[in-house]
Amino acid sequence: MSVEQIVHDICVEARQAARKLAVLSRDEKDKALLALAAALEDNQATLQEANAQDLAAAQEAGLTSAMVDRLTLSDKVIASMAQGLREVAALPDPVGEITSMWRRPNQLLVGRQRIPLGVIGFIYESRPNVTIDAAGLCLKSGNAVVLKGGKEAINSNLALAKIIAGVLAEQGLPPAAAQVIPTTDRAATTALLKEDELVDVIIPRGGESLIRFVTANSRIPVLKHYKGVCHVYVDESADHGMARDIVINGKCQRPGVCNAVETLLVHAAEAEEFLPKAAEALTAQGVEIRGCPQTVKILPSATPAVEEDWPAEFLDLILAVKVVADMNEAMDHIAQYGSAHTEAIVTRDYVRGRRFIDGVDSSLVLVNASTRFNDGGELGLGAEIGINTDKLHAFGPMGLTELTTTKFIAFGDGQVRD
Amino acid sequence: MSVEQIVHDICVEARQAARKLAVLSRDEKDKALLALAAALEDNQATLQEANAQDLAAAQEAGLTSAMVDRLTLSDKVIASMAQGLREVAALPDPVGEITSMWRRPNQLLVGRQRIPLGVIGFIYESRPNVTIDAAGLCLKSGNAVVLKGGKEAINSNLALAKIIAGVLAEQGLPPAAAQVIPTTDRAATTALLKEDELVDVIIPRGGESLIRFVTANSRIPVLKHYKGVCHVYVDESADHGMARDIVINGKCQRPGVCNAVETLLVHAAEAEEFLPKAAEALTAQGVEIRGCPQTVKILPSATPAVEEDWPAEFLDLILAVKVVADMNEAMDHIAQYGSAHTEAIVTRDYVRGRRFIDGVDSSLVLVNASTRFNDGGELGLGAEIGINTDKLHAFGPMGLTELTTTKFIAFGDGQVRD
Repeated sequence: MSVEQIVHDICVEARQAARKLAVLSRDEKDKALLALAAALEDNQATLQEANAQDLAAAQEAGLTSAMVDRLTLSDKVIASMAQGLREVAALPDPVGEITSMWRRPNQLLVGRQRIPLGVIGFIYESRPNVTIDAAGLCLKSGNAVVLKGGKEAINSNLALAKIIAGVLAEQGLPPAAAQVIPTTDRAATTALLKEDELVDVIIPRGGESLIRFVTANSRIPVLKHYKGVCHVYVDESADHGMARDIVINGKCQRPGVCNAVETLLVHAAEAEEFLPKAAEALTAQGVEIRGCPQTVKILPSATPAVEEDWPAEFLDLILAVKVVADMNEAMDHIAQYGSAHTEAIVTRDYVRGRRFIDGVDSSLVLVNASTRFNDGGELGLGAEIGINTDKLHAFGPMGLTELTTTKFIAFGDGQVRD
Repeated sequence: MSVEQIVHDICVEARQAARKLAVLSRDEKDKALLALAAALEDNQATLQEANAQDLAAAQEAGLTSAMVDRLTLSDKVIASMAQGLREVAALPDPVGEITSMWRRPNQLLVGRQRIPLGVIGFIYESRPNVTIDAAGLCLKSGNAVVLKGGKEAINSNLALAKIIAGVLAEQGLPPAAAQVIPTTDRAATTALLKEDELVDVIIPRGGESLIRFVTANSRIPVLKHYKGVCHVYVDESADHGMARDIVINGKCQRPGVCNAVETLLVHAAEAEEFLPKAAEALTAQGVEIRGCPQTVKILPSATPAVEEDWPAEFLDLILAVKVVADMNEAMDHIAQYGSAHTEAIVTRDYVRGRRFIDGVDSSLVLVNASTRFNDGGELGLGAEIGINTDKLHAFGPMGLTELTTTKFIAFGDGQVRD
């Protein structure tokens, strides 16, 4: 059977399963999630055996230790996968919610009812724990999911798929609710991206090149973000201590993530006093500063920034710094170089705080808080399935609700249209 | 200059305009809408002169009278365009609404604020009034719009574009807020569909072949519907009079529209009594019935249905009729042949009414009312920009709110992440 045929059959089954999943009660879904958590723990040895094959292949292929690390299903990773499922079970069910209802002049009662999206295609790289995270979130939100993991994790993913299928069958749920594409062939990804009659949305997770490949080849809508080039703007008369803490937290707490700060913008009136204090704290944390000419004048030890530094997502202990004449210049800089991900202003000024909130076009805009809060958990959405920096459907972190849509419902007593 | 370059420059200007449009007040937008309405009326003669060129070309090209009709900017059409703008001005501004706000345990105040999508690409066929409808809805929702109309309407559209640009400039708004691509070249459409860095969403309006072309060639998300294959299911013990009225209204009130009924499903227990009564009323309206074998047994004058009749969007006085053993068969039929547009049940049964609402996966599901209500105005959304039968972003009729998204906003006092 061709790869295309395998993928097509999986999508057909997913579509059929989706009809059944859409009408499950919360109890049925939560019971399955808890059973899956228990099954992961019960099958730890089997999982780790399969995972060992992937790890051996990874070592042979000379993968970096960071990649091997992401691939490893340690006791701790398995426990955290199980814990994640239990947390998802504890979240409210988004499906079935009536988000609003109103009466029309002709007495027709019209409402919007939350429903699953249908079939979700999940494309990701080497972390096998994503298999469980995605399966759990999709099940809870009533969606069927087709999972295409990285080739490095194929044995782990197939072992996980077997456990998932077993639990679904045992719980009387359609086994096609969460399927792993059982091949490492990249053609399978391309085939999945063409199934626009069967799959409702594609969510890719991984590096920028995977995401660009998926977007360029998909006929199905894609929820994704390419990168996070996040800014902190220190406004005129900002509290310098607060500004320094927010910059340090944004840059240093976890430099390799998408909501880390990459560029600091400082109002000209504060630069001479603020930058040396900030630089001292940043240097103590090992941060390299790449500054505009004015910054370098104030901080002679800073590296002069080049044009490529402004749109860069360093994901490292590097910070671009620019002195701006006023907030307009800061907002123009963000509009030009930012990635619509996360921007913060540090200010004491009421008017400028409001203007920054309204005028900056990013998925999270903060006043006086760290960019690191752009995360489903931190913002209070519960579990997060990813961050979308496109505006359609959901902008920013996506929780369970973002895996649903609404349909219109109407209750009449014989109304017809004039 | 190449077509690609012309389109690219238009999109760059639209993007810049979008930043300004996003922060306009409701007053500024409404004033411009009312000024545009007045300008259309004031320039009626100029518009009709340009329109006359299109009409002459249409007659020369041998367009059908229906197409010529759609193309004509009669006094009445111009008045209704102006009236439409005044109605949009009267609608509430969706932008800026805080859809929810909550406090996190660390006292960070987090909310979601409604914002425009950004730049909308509107691709449509021969109706020049769509130019004004789309420009009005996009302006009110704070979006820039790039308009690509049909080649038949190019002179009318350019005349409209000139009036729009004049009003925008006079009102101090960016003239690039609503631009018409000034060429009839289909390459312009293809070029627009590739501008995924500048355009946030594409909305096509027209026949199925246009929509399929747009979807197949777009790298930008598309909000669209292909067709409406809408069903009425007459349940066991339904009120026959109500069922007949709903079928007649759905089929005959305006047969050429997407929310017209195409297939009638009748519970076996009702068929012998209901079908002859329904057929009498349908035949009186000139409707041709294409029936399943059981239907033909009851209504010997009906045409036997062929397989192609079940997924057909007749857009005509033709109705496919099938007798089903029970509601499950009706729901299976809808899942197999429907287009996720609109389905109605006629029933007296509380449990089955609820089960139909939950189990049918269409953008509008009705109990005891006509499918013809699937329309933004009829459902109470105000003006409608189209109907989406994909589930992402908006499912069903789209009003002003569906031309927006939300960003997260957060107000802190120095919060950083642990």
